[in-house]
Amino acid sequence: MYEQLIHDLMHGNIKALARCITLIENEAAVSEKLLQSIQINNQIPVIGITGPPGSGKSTLTDALIGEIIKEKKKVAVLCIDPSSPFHYGALLGDRIRMRDWYLHPNVYIRSLAARGALGGLHVQTIAITDILKAANFDLIIIETVGVGQNEIDIARLADITVVVLVPESGDDIQTMKNGLMEIANLFVMNKCDRPGAEKVIYFLQQNLHSVHKNIPVIKAIAIQKEGISEINENINSLLRSPSPSKQIDLLKEKAYQLLVAQKIRRIDKTRLSQELETALKQPGFNLYRFVKIFNKEK
Amino acid sequence: MYEQLIHDLMHGNIKALARCITLIENEAAVSEKLLQSIQINNQIPVIGITGPPGSGKSTLTDALIGEIIKEKKKVAVLCIDPSSPFHYGALLGDRIRMRDWYLHPNVYIRSLAARGALGGLHVQTIAITDILKAANFDLIIIETVGVGQNEIDIARLADITVVVLVPESGDDIQTMKNGLMEIANLFVMNKCDRPGAEKVIYFLQQNLHSVHKNIPVIKAIAIQKEGISEINENINSLLRSPSPSKQIDLLKEKAYQLLVAQKIRRIDKTRLSQELETALKQPGFNLYRFVKIFNKEK
Repeated sequence: MYEQLIHDLMHGNIKALARCITLIENEAAVSEKLLQSIQINNQIPVIGITGPPGSGKSTLTDALIGEIIKEKKKVAVLCIDPSSPFHYGALLGDRIRMRDWYLHPNVYIRSLAARGALGGLHVQTIAITDILKAANFDLIIIETVGVGQNEIDIARLADITVVVLVPESGDDIQTMKNGLMEIANLFVMNKCDRPGAEKVIYFLQQNLHSVHKNIPVIKAIAIQKEGISEINENINSLLRSPSPSKQIDLLKEKAYQLLVAQKIRRIDKTRLSQELETALKQPGFNLYRFVKIFNKEK
Repeated sequence: MYEQLIHDLMHGNIKALARCITLIENEAAVSEKLLQSIQINNQIPVIGITGPPGSGKSTLTDALIGEIIKEKKKVAVLCIDPSSPFHYGALLGDRIRMRDWYLHPNVYIRSLAARGALGGLHVQTIAITDILKAANFDLIIIETVGVGQNEIDIARLADITVVVLVPESGDDIQTMKNGLMEIANLFVMNKCDRPGAEKVIYFLQQNLHSVHKNIPVIKAIAIQKEGISEINENINSLLRSPSPSKQIDLLKEKAYQLLVAQKIRRIDKTRLSQELETALKQPGFNLYRFVKIFNKEK
């Protein structure tokens, strides 16, 4: 039964792809087997697009898709941005209509719901990205909101990370500058016609200079498609000089995350809960002693 | 050697407390033993103060400390807000000087650096909160920025969570309303003299009403100490009606997090890395099969 699904997936069948992703999202028992059976093409580049809420990541991704399909490339977009309009379905239908690419044969867009589980979102994102890497795309885009550590971790899964800023994100740059600079291969100052843009760019470039980093900062107005072809050219140029050691580091990081997820899944929460309730009744209960004993017992 | 440290800690010695926290922060081998040896008083209430960056959490915490020490209570404050001024040391020294309580004998303030490790920050926060619960305080405040899932998880560790908003956070309310409403026991509309405050309060109350939640929304101007005594009264009133089932749920959650952290610590990253490099050389390498075999082997 799944042989047909895997065959269809690897031949670029969109229905099969959608079904595989849903299987993984629902953490169906079959998803692990599925992932063990497919051929993952690690040569397919992953572009991370991240930035604070309201920086226009979705609009920029939209415009960038236009550039990519001009090059006759097939592109998959994964949205894991909780502030992205693609998460609100009917609620924000008008904003969804902005994205014209849903029906384009060379574009596949999927949004993922954020999960509360420890490492849950992260491991699912790894798995779904790998499904996309088995599905005959030329390029994968992951769109995330750049706030928490989780999102920074996701950005680290990308071969190239584009950090989108707006003139208003001056404060964010100060707050998050270490995290941002660590992950960014390209900065985009979106909505660059707004007041303060030059000041923030200057501030950003000064910061980059002080840590001896040479990262391009591109001005754009995504809603007017301004600066988009320059962004695409910069991405292509970065992709032409891939770093093999980053590829291996990425696989190591993924392997570690998958292993962590497996270990977490094996924890028997019911037994933990029952034994804790019993232990609580004993005098001098200490949580740390309890956990140590529980972990040894098994 | 550590018997003296534990004795001093439990008698409210601030130097011993600071040293214990540093031991845990550095994940010294001794920290686990330390935690297994102390008496943790789970009756000491933990107040979480959270909200988006720029909502004035630190100023509000500052003002609240003033109210608490008026009641002759001893209070410990844990800042795990990466946007908090307390993280920048000399860089933002002027903002630090705002907090007058550093030298007050009944106030202990400690800021924690955010950690990148999966679950790292979380488990350290659990451990440090427990150290504070062994150190003779009447009240513990945890100040976190309410953006990512991690921070929401930390807020769940509190007995009572105060969510601080500003008129500008209208959008945040829409984006994060589910998460916020799940954790909040009290809302504070800070900087309520700014335009738009009434509108956002109305919107928030409508949302609360629609999910049948009766959570107080208090107006404040923290910088002018306005509304602070009302916040303190509301906290005290909430603390007078504790929920025993929440206490047990909290312990279960903590036990689970500690167990996860122990399992993660046991992963041999060096061996994982070495075996991955070998496996990569084999034709038809599949990451998911590799991880499965690695996990079984051990």
